[in-house]
Amino acid sequence: MADLDVRRTEPATERETAVAAGLADAVRELIEATVRTEVDLGEQDAIRAEIEALTARLRAAQLPASYGVAYSYSSGRHHWGNAVIGQRNAVAPPLVVQRGEGRVSAEFALGAAYEGPPSFVHGGISALILDQMLGEAAASSGHPGMTGTLSLRYLHPTPLGRLRAEAEVTRVSGIKTIAEGRILVEQPDGTWRASVEAQGLFILPRWARERLAEREATGDAAPNPFA
Amino acid sequence: MADLDVRRTEPATERETAVAAGLADAVRELIEATVRTEVDLGEQDAIRAEIEALTARLRAAQLPASYGVAYSYSSGRHHWGNAVIGQRNAVAPPLVVQRGEGRVSAEFALGAAYEGPPSFVHGGISALILDQMLGEAAASSGHPGMTGTLSLRYLHPTPLGRLRAEAEVTRVSGIKTIAEGRILVEQPDGTWRASVEAQGLFILPRWARERLAEREATGDAAPNPFA
Repeated sequence: MADLDVRRTEPATERETAVAAGLADAVRELIEATVRTEVDLGEQDAIRAEIEALTARLRAAQLPASYGVAYSYSSGRHHWGNAVIGQRNAVAPPLVVQRGEGRVSAEFALGAAYEGPPSFVHGGISALILDQMLGEAAASSGHPGMTGTLSLRYLHPTPLGRLRAEAEVTRVSGIKTIAEGRILVEQPDGTWRASVEAQGLFILPRWARERLAEREATGDAAPNPFA
Repeated sequence: MADLDVRRTEPATERETAVAAGLADAVRELIEATVRTEVDLGEQDAIRAEIEALTARLRAAQLPASYGVAYSYSSGRHHWGNAVIGQRNAVAPPLVVQRGEGRVSAEFALGAAYEGPPSFVHGGISALILDQMLGEAAASSGHPGMTGTLSLRYLHPTPLGRLRAEAEVTRVSGIKTIAEGRILVEQPDGTWRASVEAQGLFILPRWARERLAEREATGDAAPNPFA
């Protein structure tokens, strides 16, 4: 069960944001370099030892658990650990999502670390990105939730490189929100064609609604961590 | 379109495998430490600079493109770059898949880098893992393919931590293979309960079948890169 009772922090300063993003960006480059390196084994092993030393320095002071748990009630910081948009999470590309009302989009690039079949984006990475985008569309319409169902249709292979994703809410019915989205690949003629289509149902599960209602009843005005 | 005409290499030596896995494991730890660090900003910035220097050293010699493109026909190495099972890819947990005939399973742990809602695995990460597992089940039954459709049902939140995934082929019909799978969470009483269920259709698209047939006709016995 999620721990919704997390500690609050001050909003991030501009410098804090820049340093965190710079560090994670450096780790992203390191991931790609690790996949593609051909330097000799002795050098790889020496670099491994240096990385371990840097990890130890970062761990000299650290959050007790994952990022979302520690920060979800702060103003605007609670997505820094997210696996798709988290600017401090080097697993995330990260997507910078343009948010409208019930409609979102993002442009991004996927390199060697997101590969499935040779030269293609892993089908599951497309699913990961679309799950986030559909959830963002739901949240941007004022109906945040967790994924209930997600259906994907793979129309064409998605090449590694520069891509677009977009999503929009198509229906709201009580606590259920339906969103649709797609990943788009630029064609030689400059148009964009969908390579993967997704439809998802988003819902706030009962346990989360109960916890949020409890908090409201006790005057706890912290933001909804699912938004 | 995928470049299927990639160069072949010798099988990896034991030492090469160990060094590559050790390096990527060190990067995995660094990713988690980056998400959770609370060391002061000056120290974070100093560490960023050192990471950039290590990246430059790894890039002193590197593959011209993504790993699969360069290595997809080599013996047993072409999955090293895969976003779920790639031992050289720090985005991958990586899963170590136990393969039967049309039936696969894996035990793994997901840390802070795979977070969606606070303390939970990102719904899209579950989709990523299940896409790979279902594809592995299809391949293990002798019917490798790319994902055609993937449908996910989220039954319970999946906590970060130790997890299991399993998948099996349920139907083969011509060039189409249907597989089903699930992510399992250990319960307090020691039993395992499904948190996410998936069904997928796998198919070798026409362009890939044509290329593979061409290769066969010219006596090119390189393994199928989709297997």
